[in-house]
This record gives sequence, structure tokens and C-alpha cells, in this order.
Amino acid sequence: MEVKNTEISDLGEFGLIDRLTKDIKPHNTSTVRGIGDDCAVMQYHDTEVLVSTDLLLEGVHFDLTYVPLRHLGYKSAIVNFSDLYAMNATPRQITVSLGISRRFTVEHMDELYRGIKLACDIYGVDLVGGDTTASRQGLVISITCIGDAPKDKIVYRDGAKDTDLICVSGDLGAAYMGLQLLEREKVASAGKPDFVPEFGGKEYLIERQLKPEARKDIIAELDKAGIVPTSMMDISDGLSSELMHICKQSHTGCRIYEDRIPIDYQTAIMAEELNMNLVTAALNGGEDYELLFTVPLHYHDRVRDMKGIKVIGHMTREELGCAMITRDGESEIPLKAQGFNHMSGDK
Amino acid sequence: MEVKNTEISDLGEFGLIDRLTKDIKPHNTSTVRGIGDDCAVMQYHDTEVLVSTDLLLEGVHFDLTYVPLRHLGYKSAIVNFSDLYAMNATPRQITVSLGISRRFTVEHMDELYRGIKLACDIYGVDLVGGDTTASRQGLVISITCIGDAPKDKIVYRDGAKDTDLICVSGDLGAAYMGLQLLEREKVASAGKPDFVPEFGGKEYLIERQLKPEARKDIIAELDKAGIVPTSMMDISDGLSSELMHICKQSHTGCRIYEDRIPIDYQTAIMAEELNMNLVTAALNGGEDYELLFTVPLHYHDRVRDMKGIKVIGHMTREELGCAMITRDGESEIPLKAQGFNHMSGDK
Repeated sequence: MEVKNTEISDLGEFGLIDRLTKDIKPHNTSTVRGIGDDCAVMQYHDTEVLVSTDLLLEGVHFDLTYVPLRHLGYKSAIVNFSDLYAMNATPRQITVSLGISRRFTVEHMDELYRGIKLACDIYGVDLVGGDTTASRQGLVISITCIGDAPKDKIVYRDGAKDTDLICVSGDLGAAYMGLQLLEREKVASAGKPDFVPEFGGKEYLIERQLKPEARKDIIAELDKAGIVPTSMMDISDGLSSELMHICKQSHTGCRIYEDRIPIDYQTAIMAEELNMNLVTAALNGGEDYELLFTVPLHYHDRVRDMKGIKVIGHMTREELGCAMITRDGESEIPLKAQGFNHMSGDK
Repeated sequence: MEVKNTEISDLGEFGLIDRLTKDIKPHNTSTVRGIGDDCAVMQYHDTEVLVSTDLLLEGVHFDLTYVPLRHLGYKSAIVNFSDLYAMNATPRQITVSLGISRRFTVEHMDELYRGIKLACDIYGVDLVGGDTTASRQGLVISITCIGDAPKDKIVYRDGAKDTDLICVSGDLGAAYMGLQLLEREKVASAGKPDFVPEFGGKEYLIERQLKPEARKDIIAELDKAGIVPTSMMDISDGLSSELMHICKQSHTGCRIYEDRIPIDYQTAIMAEELNMNLVTAALNGGEDYELLFTVPLHYHDRVRDMKGIKVIGHMTREELGCAMITRDGESEIPLKAQGFNHMSGDK
């Protein structure tokens, strides 16, 4: 009998996860929700406990030639906190596991931890455990975040209705442009020890790439306004990809408006400079760690008036598919999930 | 100013962890116990939630030339369950993060997951999440396990008293001997495609290395007998190293008796064959995943009669240090923590 050999890139990350986890049935009553959202949800007696985990590998997720270790530590923690906020929950604890290759010293690890601890202090999260080991393969960082939320406040990906409004926080595409800028300066600096990178006027892009924040403030604002979104995700892979996740899990379609996608002017200037399509960067760039969420139509006035939130479109019935209406209002472009896909062949 | 560069091997794994985490203060009332035990303990309302995490790297923790992926998956899950049992808790959920390099196919991951799922089914644990990414560096496995325990049943490392009895479950050194055997056959097979490894009569050693079990049964037996140990750990790095952890954290010394250390006859035969010191293997071999625990002296008769548990010595006052009394009863050998240390220079 021939054994089939399927390349992982044929399935992609989500296809592989679907295949590996499709027949998993829970054993424990404490398991409320498993794979398929930003966090898993568990109920221990009357408390909802949430958990999320991220694996970051040198050479795949970060490049230490331009990422300072302190920033890397900060960002590694932040991306996990962001997963908890994306469920409308509060991150409380993290565990940090490190695989460390020989070129790193204790002082390097001090720097990495300085960033992790700073993030923990700012967001009020406790570092409670982890595992530390040698690595033959560069730096490996695995962070798991645990938190809680009142049961009736948890927001999943599958609760959007076909008349809901689609909202995003902050602006999109800047982190991606920051990465392009860092890559450009890395290439330019090759072999030139005295090279000074050219970041003037582009500090926001660099900051969005190297030191992103999780939108704890937006979660607090929504709570203050008495709004519980019907669905929510954080934007790590790009708006298109995340929105399609929500639509798939909520059985809806969507329409977003090109002219409503929030973009910072530095992002626009950088796209021009690099001759890249600005909207494509905003739709597919990823690593923004902004919140994408849906609210019932009758919250329109309330969300419109909230600082840092923009209504970018609305859900539709599932059969209408997912599309963006162009600036001139005349055509619809189907959305594609071209976000960062670390499992695809071209990355 | 000169920046100091301290090699990580100068501090070792535990030294590095101590340094990185020494000034961490909790922000959340839900954080009961952080770094320094098999698990972190959190209290969400009235429930104690425990979490433990392990990072396993190809080339450091496993060698796929002789470890089948299904066994690797099983063992990766088991070692995490073991950390929960070592706190007298019940593992409930795991998250599994994978970094996968290009030489692995979807079918390989099916095999790995088959092992993880089998362990989950046998131990009643739910796989609730994870992260999957490409790796440039071989296979990376990061597993986090979450569980619970009644508050008054949780057993830490720091509760031993200086008159307590020291107990271990099962037998020691077999997993280490299994590893030696697998390494020997790997060397012997090099360049010989038709090579058939010689495992006859040594199946137990292979099984202990490739497919260890977590001692859920011992936890259940202790519970049935109404015994809550005063301290407990699972033996992953070797009896000496673990016992010294308990003594350090409990501020005790200890005496164990060479002739009471439980060793399987296959382990003894293999040590003879390889011309290795049998007791050294049992003390320092590691990866046994047996339970090491202490109980008050008055439980002596109860633990003596329990199947699969052996009393190997007793705690002492701290100033007496940690030592093993030799078979002839005439001398004391100070214990050393020579367990597997992935951070040390020689590993």
C-alpha cells in the first residue's frame, strides 16, 4: 500500500489545523470552547478561564538583525494579551518558554525579559511559569496567556448577525509598512558597518512593527459604553483574512468600504515610496493587533462617536460572499485571505 | 562602559530562571503561586486552576531517527500531564503549538497528533488550542497543560518537614537505560539500511524511554488512602536533582538508602552490559516521570503497604545536607544534581 505524502503547504496553516483537530471531542465538562477562536474557554466551577498560546521562531517570525531583544520580549507578550482582549477578556497570567542557542548570553536574556516584564507591568499581567532549554536552532519563544471574563461578556467569532456593523480600532497596514522599511534598510546596510538607517518621519511605522500595543483601552471603552460586540478578533493576519474567519464561523457575508478603511498618513507615504498598493497593505498586511468586531445595527450612533473606532461596513447574508466596495462605489472586489501565512510555500 | 557577557552555561537552567524571574511581583489576586514548582497555581473565584508548560526541540529533547512521531506525540502530552499530577491535581486541557520544518508532511503530523490524542483519550484531557507555524529548524513542540485541584489538596515542593518519609513510585533509571540502548543501536545501524536493532529482553527499557506514563494511578491511590503528601515532584531530571529541589524549597536535608532505590532487573542488566554505574543511572538518569513525595512519619505503615510505592529514606534538618547511605550502611555520599541539564555546556 502506498503511503500518501501531502505537502503541508497544500493545506496551509488553517487546513492543517482543521485536519488534525476535526474529530476532537471534549472529555471534561470544564471545556467550554476548544480550537477555532483567539482563545480556548474553560469553565472552572462558576468562572470562565481563557487560554491562548503563540509560538515565535527566529527566522520565521522575527529577525534579530533589526529587532532589539527588549522589543521582541515586549511584542511577544503583547500578541498574547491581544488574543485575550479579542475575546473581551482580561489577561491575568503568562508562561514563557524559551529555547536558547549558544550565541545568546545571559545579558541577552535579561534584555528579552526586560521587555516581557515591561509589557506585564503595563498590562497588569503576571509571569507565572515557563520552561527554559538549550536550542540548536536560534531563539524559540512560546508564550501562553491565561485570563478570565464574565460568562456573558465573552465574545466569540461566530456570533455576528447578517445585519451587524463591522468596526475596527486604530489604523491598518502600518506594521506591515514598518516591516518593509526595516527590510529595506537591512538590505541597504549589508556589508556597511557604519550604516545609519533612514527612519526620519517614519517613526510610527517602526513603532507599530517593533512595539505594538494590545487594545486594552478599546475593551474598556466598549465596556463603559455598555457594548458587548457580537463577534470579535484581533487583526494579526490582516483584515481580509480575519473578517473572512468571522464570516465563515458566523455564516454571514460582508461588505466593507474601501474609503472607510483607517490608514495613517505615514503608511500611505511609505506605500507610495515603495510603489505598493496601499489598500492591499491595509487589507492583508497583518500584525496590526487592532480589534475587528461587529455590533448590532442599533449601536451605530454609539460606536460612531467612540474615539479610535471606525465603522467600515456591514455583515450580509452568507450567500452574498465577502467583498470590498471600491472608492468610486461602482464595483465590488471579492476579499481574499492573503494574510501572512507561515505555512504557505512562498513564506 | 563594558557590557558583561555571561555564558548561559555558567548559570545553568535553574540559575538563569532564578536571575530572570527573581524580582517578579504579582499584579493579580488570582495569581496564587508563580515560578518554582511543577505548575503555576491560580485562583479564579473559588477554584484553583493550575498550568504547566514544556518546550521540546528536535535535536535537544528528541531524535527522530529512533523516536516514532506517534510516540513523540504521546510522550509530549504525558510529560505535561505528569506535572499536574505532581501537584496532586487533575490535568483537564492542553494546548499544542507546533513549529514544522519542510521535511515533514501532513501525514507525519497526523502521526504526531495520533499520539497526542491517544494520551488525551487515556488520561481524559481535552486538546483545546495551540499555534501552528513553519519552522526553519526542525520540529518544535510546545505544550501547555491546564488543570484543577481542590485548594486543600494541592501539593507544593516546599511543604516537607524534617521528619517526613521520602517515597517514590515505580522504579528508576529504566528510561535512561532505554535511551542508552537506542543510542547504541543508532550508532550500530549507521550506514546499514537492513540493520535490525537488538532489543530482545529489553522491551521494558525501550517502553520507558519512548512511551512513558504519568502516575495518575498513584495520585488516585493516595487519595483513596486519605494521604495528602507534604511535598511532591515528578522525576524528570533524576531523583537526586528533584530531591535537592524539594529539600532546598522546604529547608530540609535528607538521607536516602542505596539499597531501597527501586530498580528494575532489566535496568540492572543493561547497566552491567554498558559497564555503567547502576545507582548513578537511577539517581541521575531522568525521564522516569515517577512521583517523588514526602509524607509525615505516622503514615509509614500506610505507604509501606501501597502497591508501587517505596519508602527510600527520610528528611532531616537542613544543616545535615542531602546524602545517600551506601548499601553497606557505612558511608554517606553527598547527593549531586547531575540530572539532564540542557543548558549546561556538555549537553
